[in-house]
Amino acid sequence: MSGDWLDQLAWDSRGLVPAIAQDEQSGEVLMMAWMNRDALEQTLARGEAVYWSRSRQRLWHKGETSGHVQVVADIRLDCDGDTILLKVHQKGGMACHTGRAHCFYQQLKGDSWQTVEPVLKDPDEIYPGMS
Amino acid sequence: MSGDWLDQLAWDSRGLVPAIAQDEQSGEVLMMAWMNRDALEQTLARGEAVYWSRSRQRLWHKGETSGHVQVVADIRLDCDGDTILLKVHQKGGMACHTGRAHCFYQQLKGDSWQTVEPVLKDPDEIYPGMS
Repeated sequence: MSGDWLDQLAWDSRGLVPAIAQDEQSGEVLMMAWMNRDALEQTLARGEAVYWSRSRQRLWHKGETSGHVQVVADIRLDCDGDTILLKVHQKGGMACHTGRAHCFYQQLKGDSWQTVEPVLKDPDEIYPGMS
Repeated sequence: MSGDWLDQLAWDSRGLVPAIAQDEQSGEVLMMAWMNRDALEQTLARGEAVYWSRSRQRLWHKGETSGHVQVVADIRLDCDGDTILLKVHQKGGMACHTGRAHCFYQQLKGDSWQTVEPVLKDPDEIYPGMS
C-alpha cells in the first residue's frame, strides 16, 4: 500500500503543494517552498526537508550547499489536503539564503515594506564562490 | 504613491500569492490561503484577514459567516516577495471550517495521515443552515 498517503494530497495542476517550514522550538515560520510527490517522499525518507525548486526544476535538499539543513520533527497536512506544514530543527539557525534566521523579514509599516531582521551571516560566506 | 507596496509583490500568473496565518500569541500556524491584490489591500484597510477564494472566485473576508475573524497584528513578506505571513488574533479560537483550532490537524504517522486535533465546535453550529 506504499504511496497511498501521497495519493491523499490534493496536488495542484503542476503536481505541487506549498510546504511551510516552522521552527519546532521557537514556533517561528521560517519559509515557504513547494513540494512534489518525490520531494515529500524524500523528506520522509531522509528526515530532512526536500523541496521542489521551481526555478531550477529539480529536487532541492534544503541546506545541500549551505549546510543549513532542516531536520524534520513533524509533518502535517491541512483540512483540504493541499498544504503541508513541517516542524523542523533548523541547522545553523538560518533558513534564508540572505543569511537571516527566516525569510519573512520584510514588515509592512504604513504603506511600505521595511526590513526588520538582521543578517546573521554574509551570503558570500554561506555560498562561497557562487556570486 | 498608493499601491507601490502592492507592486513589490511577485504575484503569480493568476495574480495570487499564498498567505500564511499564524496565531500571534501561541505561534501556531493556523491556515494557508491565497490573496490577490484586492485581498491584501482590504486586509490592510480592515485590519482583518481578507483572502481570495479560488473555489468561489471572490473575496473572502475570513469569518464573515462564522464570526471567526482574524484580527491582523503584523503583515510580513518573504525574501522572494511571493509569500505573505500574517500574525493574527483568531476570534473564537478556531481557524478551521471543521471546527478545529487550526487546519493542520492531520499528522503523518508511519505512512498514514492521522487526525490528532479535536473538534472544538460542530460545524453545523458554526455554519447553521448551510449543510
